[in-house]
Amino acid sequence: MGEFELLARIRERLPASGPRIHLGSGDDAAISLPGGATATSVDALVDGVHFRRDLATPTQIGHKALATALSDLAAMGAEPGEAYVVLGAPADLGEEECIDLLDGMLALASDTGTDLAGGDLTRARELFLAITVVGHAASPAAFVDRAGARPGDALVLTGEIGGAAAGLELLSDPELAKRIAPADSKLQRARQLEPLPRLAAGRALAEAGASAMIDLSDGLGGDAAHLAECSGSGLKIRCDALPIAPGVAELARATGRDPYALAVSGGEDYELLASIAPEHLAAARRRVLEAEEGIALTQIGEVVAGSGVEIRLPGGRLLEPAGYDHLA
Amino acid sequence: MGEFELLARIRERLPASGPRIHLGSGDDAAISLPGGATATSVDALVDGVHFRRDLATPTQIGHKALATALSDLAAMGAEPGEAYVVLGAPADLGEEECIDLLDGMLALASDTGTDLAGGDLTRARELFLAITVVGHAASPAAFVDRAGARPGDALVLTGEIGGAAAGLELLSDPELAKRIAPADSKLQRARQLEPLPRLAAGRALAEAGASAMIDLSDGLGGDAAHLAECSGSGLKIRCDALPIAPGVAELARATGRDPYALAVSGGEDYELLASIAPEHLAAARRRVLEAEEGIALTQIGEVVAGSGVEIRLPGGRLLEPAGYDHLA
Repeated sequence: MGEFELLARIRERLPASGPRIHLGSGDDAAISLPGGATATSVDALVDGVHFRRDLATPTQIGHKALATALSDLAAMGAEPGEAYVVLGAPADLGEEECIDLLDGMLALASDTGTDLAGGDLTRARELFLAITVVGHAASPAAFVDRAGARPGDALVLTGEIGGAAAGLELLSDPELAKRIAPADSKLQRARQLEPLPRLAAGRALAEAGASAMIDLSDGLGGDAAHLAECSGSGLKIRCDALPIAPGVAELARATGRDPYALAVSGGEDYELLASIAPEHLAAARRRVLEAEEGIALTQIGEVVAGSGVEIRLPGGRLLEPAGYDHLA
Repeated sequence: MGEFELLARIRERLPASGPRIHLGSGDDAAISLPGGATATSVDALVDGVHFRRDLATPTQIGHKALATALSDLAAMGAEPGEAYVVLGAPADLGEEECIDLLDGMLALASDTGTDLAGGDLTRARELFLAITVVGHAASPAAFVDRAGARPGDALVLTGEIGGAAAGLELLSDPELAKRIAPADSKLQRARQLEPLPRLAAGRALAEAGASAMIDLSDGLGGDAAHLAECSGSGLKIRCDALPIAPGVAELARATGRDPYALAVSGGEDYELLASIAPEHLAAARRRVLEAEEGIALTQIGEVVAGSGVEIRLPGGRLLEPAGYDHLA
């Protein structure tokens, strides 16, 4: 595979840049003219840690890499702008697989209004992708960080959780799929392989007045702890309020585990966890539904004075979330 | 090594952010408020391809990763702003080595006025770094791209070339060091291990009216070809005008090669190659010397009508540059 030939093929596939880009891929740097404030995030995906080449197609890997990066912009309430991609390509990754990876990214970029504005291609022993995304807003104050949750705020969650972790188990052990409904199994495998960043829901929550927001990559338990710590507040979560993805409870019971534990400890759902003053809750719920069809906003608890996260099971006992180790 | 503990240690070492950063490392994204136009570039360094852990210290690897990324901003004439770092850390990379890597970056960041504004840490089988840098200028037109070289422009080069490739040979085969002066050997090893981005020289060239600019990572021959192609012009280079680093000619002769071939084909010098109208040349030379002490601007040829790069040896024969394969 000749690097320059492949780069030429990659550039041919890139669509015309959006209005913010003055100079796209192919020079020393891309030139853009941001309109106000920018939010920038970097994310890396490594073979064997964040995906497995035997479980996901190159197109799915490309999609997931960009999706997880954009999810951080969703959690800021940012409008997605530009993405910059580093591809570490091992010798056994063919040119067609590189193009498929790119196509997976390009399809999601197109769906979300993101410009693939630059990149770097290097040899590597294992496949990795490092993606930088830049999002925009009129001013720094228009973004939602993790630090603004205040006692009395409602704690809300977009969509459903537990699906991506269940999907990983279903992919790793196809026998498990017989234990739950085929439609649910398919849905949860897709949650693991092709997550969707909640960009429109994130902007809706920002506009509705969310006081703090984070995306769920390490599992609700772990990410809620980050939000609590950054905000200097405590969080109370009620398990019976959790929107658990279909099939997750059945899968947990079939494998002898607590459904809530699986949902709270499972990572990679890329839903948004936010705090919001109770008086803004109804409007936020309406705006999220308008922004993303079928995505409900569910109140799962409250922000309280103090620190830490208290997750209470229906019987009253506390649930101690386990760390989520992606593919480990 | 606990990821969160290490991240906490890393954050402790980060200095206060510059005025452009409204929210630094530790949230879903960093928030900044760019003043005008931005230039963004991504670069990856992989163990065994761009550095070798047995030849470079972690501090040197961190320095080089940031330096090569910033070199792309130098080639745009940009003011360095923010850097975002992805570290892929193999199991045998200890916590102290991670901190040393960071310190190598932080020292150069401080020297160049760059904010380390965010990052991501992931497990990997091999050590890699992917760095995104953002530079600034008042408007898109203030940056210098690769496409503006016009027939009649002078072709100029900052500093000296061939040193980094010679340094790699000296590091790989310590016996070779006996063939050249110890001071030269030390200097060229440093060019390979701790390159310096020509940021001030790049801004000086931009202000002096450079029409096109590129940094030398793949060797003068290869990078001149990129500049020629992007500009739709031809380039003529005279070998007897080349500023070859001290010791390079001796090393080439000691190993039976043409000194010019080594200088023209050797990569990783991170000097700047630029085109500029002849009437601006004297002012450009003065500004570069003022900007970086001891860094001369040397005219090495001209931009001509046509395409391609013609590199002429003192005797009149043409030199065909070889591709530079970094550590291969």
